[in-house]
Amino acid sequence: MKTTDEQKVPVTEIEAAMRNSLDSLAKPRGSLGRLEDFCVKMAKIQGTVPPRIRKKGLYIFAGDHGITEEGVSLYPPEITGQMVRAFLSGQAAVNTLAAECGWELAAVDAGVAVSFPPETALSSPHRFLPRKIHRGSRSFLKEDALTREELDQALEQGKELAGDAKERSYDLAALGDMGIGNTSTAAAILSAAGFPSDIMTDRGTGIDGEMLAHKRRVIEKALELRKARKNDALDIMKKLGSCDLAMMTGFILGLRGQGIACVLDGFPVTSAAYMAYMLDPGVTDYLFAGHLSKVSGHKPVLDALGLEPVVSLGMHLGEGSGAVIGGRIVELALLTARNMAGFSQAGLSGSSKEEELY
Amino acid sequence: MKTTDEQKVPVTEIEAAMRNSLDSLAKPRGSLGRLEDFCVKMAKIQGTVPPRIRKKGLYIFAGDHGITEEGVSLYPPEITGQMVRAFLSGQAAVNTLAAECGWELAAVDAGVAVSFPPETALSSPHRFLPRKIHRGSRSFLKEDALTREELDQALEQGKELAGDAKERSYDLAALGDMGIGNTSTAAAILSAAGFPSDIMTDRGTGIDGEMLAHKRRVIEKALELRKARKNDALDIMKKLGSCDLAMMTGFILGLRGQGIACVLDGFPVTSAAYMAYMLDPGVTDYLFAGHLSKVSGHKPVLDALGLEPVVSLGMHLGEGSGAVIGGRIVELALLTARNMAGFSQAGLSGSSKEEELY
Repeated sequence: MKTTDEQKVPVTEIEAAMRNSLDSLAKPRGSLGRLEDFCVKMAKIQGTVPPRIRKKGLYIFAGDHGITEEGVSLYPPEITGQMVRAFLSGQAAVNTLAAECGWELAAVDAGVAVSFPPETALSSPHRFLPRKIHRGSRSFLKEDALTREELDQALEQGKELAGDAKERSYDLAALGDMGIGNTSTAAAILSAAGFPSDIMTDRGTGIDGEMLAHKRRVIEKALELRKARKNDALDIMKKLGSCDLAMMTGFILGLRGQGIACVLDGFPVTSAAYMAYMLDPGVTDYLFAGHLSKVSGHKPVLDALGLEPVVSLGMHLGEGSGAVIGGRIVELALLTARNMAGFSQAGLSGSSKEEELY
Repeated sequence: MKTTDEQKVPVTEIEAAMRNSLDSLAKPRGSLGRLEDFCVKMAKIQGTVPPRIRKKGLYIFAGDHGITEEGVSLYPPEITGQMVRAFLSGQAAVNTLAAECGWELAAVDAGVAVSFPPETALSSPHRFLPRKIHRGSRSFLKEDALTREELDQALEQGKELAGDAKERSYDLAALGDMGIGNTSTAAAILSAAGFPSDIMTDRGTGIDGEMLAHKRRVIEKALELRKARKNDALDIMKKLGSCDLAMMTGFILGLRGQGIACVLDGFPVTSAAYMAYMLDPGVTDYLFAGHLSKVSGHKPVLDALGLEPVVSLGMHLGEGSGAVIGGRIVELALLTARNMAGFSQAGLSGSSKEEELY
């Protein structure tokens, strides 16, 4: 029932070719709404009409954050490493979501404080990718979070992981985050880049007013002390960032020209995407915002990136949980456009005004 | 990895029991957002913590609408029957969406103008349910759309189909619509029930301003002529409704007490749900709004029903296409809550303040 064989189309004609293909299907014109836009965006990314998704891979970047020393999070950093083990043993929320939505899952040690022995992933159906550069970022209240060497290495490792996605034939790569303190780091780098720090620094799930006020003071004080240059993403990431977020930034930059779309998750992942955008504004051409999280800073950053989230479910879990749901809906759009019959093929009466079908 | 065995819980304690169960999982409290609300609602519908979905069934109610005689739709009524055949042969958009999201599909002849021979569904993997009461409603501009007998029969058939859902062990039943002219009928019954007719009567996909003005005049004139009693759903349905919409109304009413949740699709399905709500306001306890369609009348009616759509993707196709996506996300919520590990089970450090995990 495939209506159109896959064909390479010159980039300038892709959008029109994809819209024509969609308009020939047995449905009122435009009636699949944003699903049609997802098809057009994927067609442009792949240079192919209609586009297709063969495999989907989720990368969860785990890392520890020295800023937790300053009491911005009630929870101990040990959780970061424990959750990496939970991902590998299939016990986390994202395991069910990824499996049900058809994603392969890889947990990346992008700077977790604890050590993982070589046998860590031996009994896991998932991949463990050890990319530890250090045992967590330094507290950016006291000193620069990263050295320039650490930052460069993290960006490089991220680019190499983009190559991993290519090797594994992923057409969609989703990014997830895991790291106690990572919303503080995300808030700091985004505030340094010019977003309002009070909106970037959210209450989170259950933090009380007092603790939120403290978290804000810590971040504002750190912004003053570190004096990162507003338009210099590398300076911002070195002074206020972390290896896990920088690795995501590198990953996104590394996807350029690979024909792979990248699905963002929540606030920390989106902060990394914003750093990538500062370094290469063209990255938004191949980014999807998987979901809108409950965190207050998420929407303004997505707006700045020009990305409309696929779903908005009030989630704020991280792990890639929103990305795998949103990315699956992108896939559903492509599958629908590929499988359904053309207007005439389905034996439908009609005219050139299919939009009046119903 | 199942953390809680399924257990019947007294109805007054269900919400608390489900929230406790969710809070014991290896995630910050509340971090699954609305997915947690979906679990709570399903737990209340099933009287079980945690709830479960064994099977999901989509019923597409197809019917013709005499109001098309008045030139409210550019397209010929023949499309209705042709689309029923497309559903059975797997060629429509909803076929891919339903298959990918794990729904069984049944096409119901709820008053299609054309005849379907007995062998219609013989070679189809889907079910065809012939429930034809007549060959389409009468034009409500000229006379009452239905006789009282037709209305009663449609409501009864709908209730019987709710029994079919029970027999087939569906825990989620989705409703879809197919019928040239059905948005006009939906606009008329909702306007008669008190919603503003200019918002209920939408431009649709491609109708021009002139045709929209005509559609509005037809509906307003019909409202004047038929003089349906505003608070009398049966009077409204008899004078302005149709068998396909009334069958959906009966279906929803018939689900009461069955432990089955019903997922609504777009504007026509929601108009039928509103009629059910007028007859039994308790139906909203087991309704989910699968999606928000692009049709302008949809949101005010969902608001009146107190239902927040699961997704909002700008779709306006009908067929149940939005319901199967939204319902699948409800299912993902339940699966996640059932499969993920408890906080202690996952070997996580922590305190009673899990909400501060990240």
